[in-house]
Amino acid sequence: MDTSTRIESVLQDVLARRESPDSPPRLADAVRYAVFPGGGRMRPRLALAVAGACGDDAPDAANAAAAAIEMLHCASLIHDDLPCFDDAQVRRGKPSVHVAYGERLAVLAGDALIVLAFETLADAAASAPERLPALLRTLGRSVGLPSGICAGQAWECEPNGVPLDKYEQLKTGSLFAAATVIGAEAAGRDGQPWRTLGAKLGEAYQVADDIRDVYADAEDLGKPTGRDEALDRPSAVRELGLEGAKARLNTLVEDAVASIPQCPGRDQLIQLIRSETKRFLPKSLAQAAA
Amino acid sequence: MDTSTRIESVLQDVLARRESPDSPPRLADAVRYAVFPGGGRMRPRLALAVAGACGDDAPDAANAAAAAIEMLHCASLIHDDLPCFDDAQVRRGKPSVHVAYGERLAVLAGDALIVLAFETLADAAASAPERLPALLRTLGRSVGLPSGICAGQAWECEPNGVPLDKYEQLKTGSLFAAATVIGAEAAGRDGQPWRTLGAKLGEAYQVADDIRDVYADAEDLGKPTGRDEALDRPSAVRELGLEGAKARLNTLVEDAVASIPQCPGRDQLIQLIRSETKRFLPKSLAQAAA
Repeated sequence: MDTSTRIESVLQDVLARRESPDSPPRLADAVRYAVFPGGGRMRPRLALAVAGACGDDAPDAANAAAAAIEMLHCASLIHDDLPCFDDAQVRRGKPSVHVAYGERLAVLAGDALIVLAFETLADAAASAPERLPALLRTLGRSVGLPSGICAGQAWECEPNGVPLDKYEQLKTGSLFAAATVIGAEAAGRDGQPWRTLGAKLGEAYQVADDIRDVYADAEDLGKPTGRDEALDRPSAVRELGLEGAKARLNTLVEDAVASIPQCPGRDQLIQLIRSETKRFLPKSLAQAAA
Repeated sequence: MDTSTRIESVLQDVLARRESPDSPPRLADAVRYAVFPGGGRMRPRLALAVAGACGDDAPDAANAAAAAIEMLHCASLIHDDLPCFDDAQVRRGKPSVHVAYGERLAVLAGDALIVLAFETLADAAASAPERLPALLRTLGRSVGLPSGICAGQAWECEPNGVPLDKYEQLKTGSLFAAATVIGAEAAGRDGQPWRTLGAKLGEAYQVADDIRDVYADAEDLGKPTGRDEALDRPSAVRELGLEGAKARLNTLVEDAVASIPQCPGRDQLIQLIRSETKRFLPKSLAQAAA
C-alpha cells in the first residue's frame, strides 16, 4: 500500500469507528468534511516516512500517530478559519467548515477532532502499550501549552506581537516537529533527536506558505491570497522580501536534512525529503527561484 | 488533606507545570481564569469519592483523572459561553472568558484545556501505566463522538432538535458518568459497573440546573437565569413543570444510589452522595420541594 492510500485508509477507519446512528449527524458530517478530501497530508506523510526510516516495527502505532497529527492539523485549520480569527471563507478549495456548517458546529468539530486524536493513540495502544506515554506526551506538547499550536495562535492575541521566528516555530513548526518525533517513537526509537528535522521543515513550510500567500494564484492554492497583509500577520515575505524568503526556505531545508539521525533508512529519507520539499512552492515560483 | 484541598492543589500543580516564561501570557492567564476559582467541583469530587470507595491504591492516577474531568468541564463551559452558542456574559459570578479575554483566547483556552486533560493522564501514567489506556478511553468517550459532551452540544444544532432525555444524558450525564467510571478505573477496578451511578447523577444535576434556571436568584447562581426559555433549549421544567421536575430529580438520585456496585467503601459513599445531592438545589427550592 503506498503512503497516501495508507493515510486515507487509516483516517477513514478512525472516523468510521466514531460514527453511529446515535450521534448528531451534522457534527459527524462536519468532522468528515474537515478531514476529507485532505490537503497535502504533509505531516502524516512525514510521520510515516520517519517511522519507515526507523524500521516501522509497529505499523498500527505509526498509523495512529500519523492520523492523530493530521486530525490536530485539521482541528487547528477549522478553529483558525473561524470569524473571530481569520474569518476565512474558503479552505482546500471549498467553503470553510463554519461557512458550510455554521460557527457552532465548527467550534465543536474542532473540539471533537482534538479529542479523537488522543483517542486514536489510546485505541492503538494494544499493539505497543509501552510506547503510549511518549506518543501522548509528544502529541500534547505539539498542540497545547506552553509551546504547541494553541500557544502559537495565541501569540497573535498578544498586544505587543511576537518575533517572526517564534511565531513560525510554534504555529507550524510544532506540529511538524511532533510528526518526526512521534514517527520515531511509534517505531520504538527515542524521538528527541528527530525534533530538529520536523521543526526546520515546519518553518520551511511556513515560509513557503508566506510566499504562496503573496505570489500564488488563489485558485491553485484552494484559499484566498494576500491574507497576511490584510490581517497584519507576521510573514517572511513582509520581513525579508521574496528573494530573502526563498533563501531562508533553502537554508531551512538544508538544515533539516543535515539533522537527520543515523537510522536504517537514512539515505532513502533524505531523497524523499528533497523531493517533497520541492513541492512546497508551486512550479512557477520554484522555477523563478532557480 | 480533605477532598477540596486535594482537588485545588492538583489543578494548581497541573497548570503550573504548563506555565513558562516562553508561553503567551494572555492564553496562560485565560486558562487559569477559567479554572480558578471553581464552581462546585462536583465531577472531580465524585471521581475521588468513587476512587476512595474502591480503595484509592494509586492516588496520583486518581488525582490526574479527577483533574482531567474538571478541565474538560471548564473547557466545555468556555466554549458553551461563546457568542455563537449561549453568548453568556457571566459565569461563576464573574465575566465569562470571552468577555474577559476576547473570543479568540476563549476558543484557544478551551482547546488548550482539552489537550491538558489528556496530557495530565499521560503524565500520571508512571504511577500505574497499565491503567492508562482505560483512563484515556473513558476520558475520550465522555467528551468526543459519538456520545460525549461535544455530541450533546451538537444536538442543539440539529434542525429537528433532540429528545430531552438524550440531551441531558449527553450534555451533562456523559461527564458525570466518566467521573465515576474513571474514579473506579484509577483505583484498578472495572469502571463499567460504575457508569449508571454517574449517568443518573449527571441527569439529576441537569434537572436541578433546569430548575435553578427558572427559580433561583441570579446572584446566588453566579450566572443569569431564564436562559433555557430565552434560548429555546430543552428543559425539564419546560417539559414537566416544577413539581414534575423535582419528582424526576428524586427518582434519578434514588436510581443512582441503588446502582452502586459492591466495594469496600459502599456505605460511606452512599452517605456522601445523599448529602452532596441535597446541595444540587438552593435551600429555598429544596425546602419548597419537601
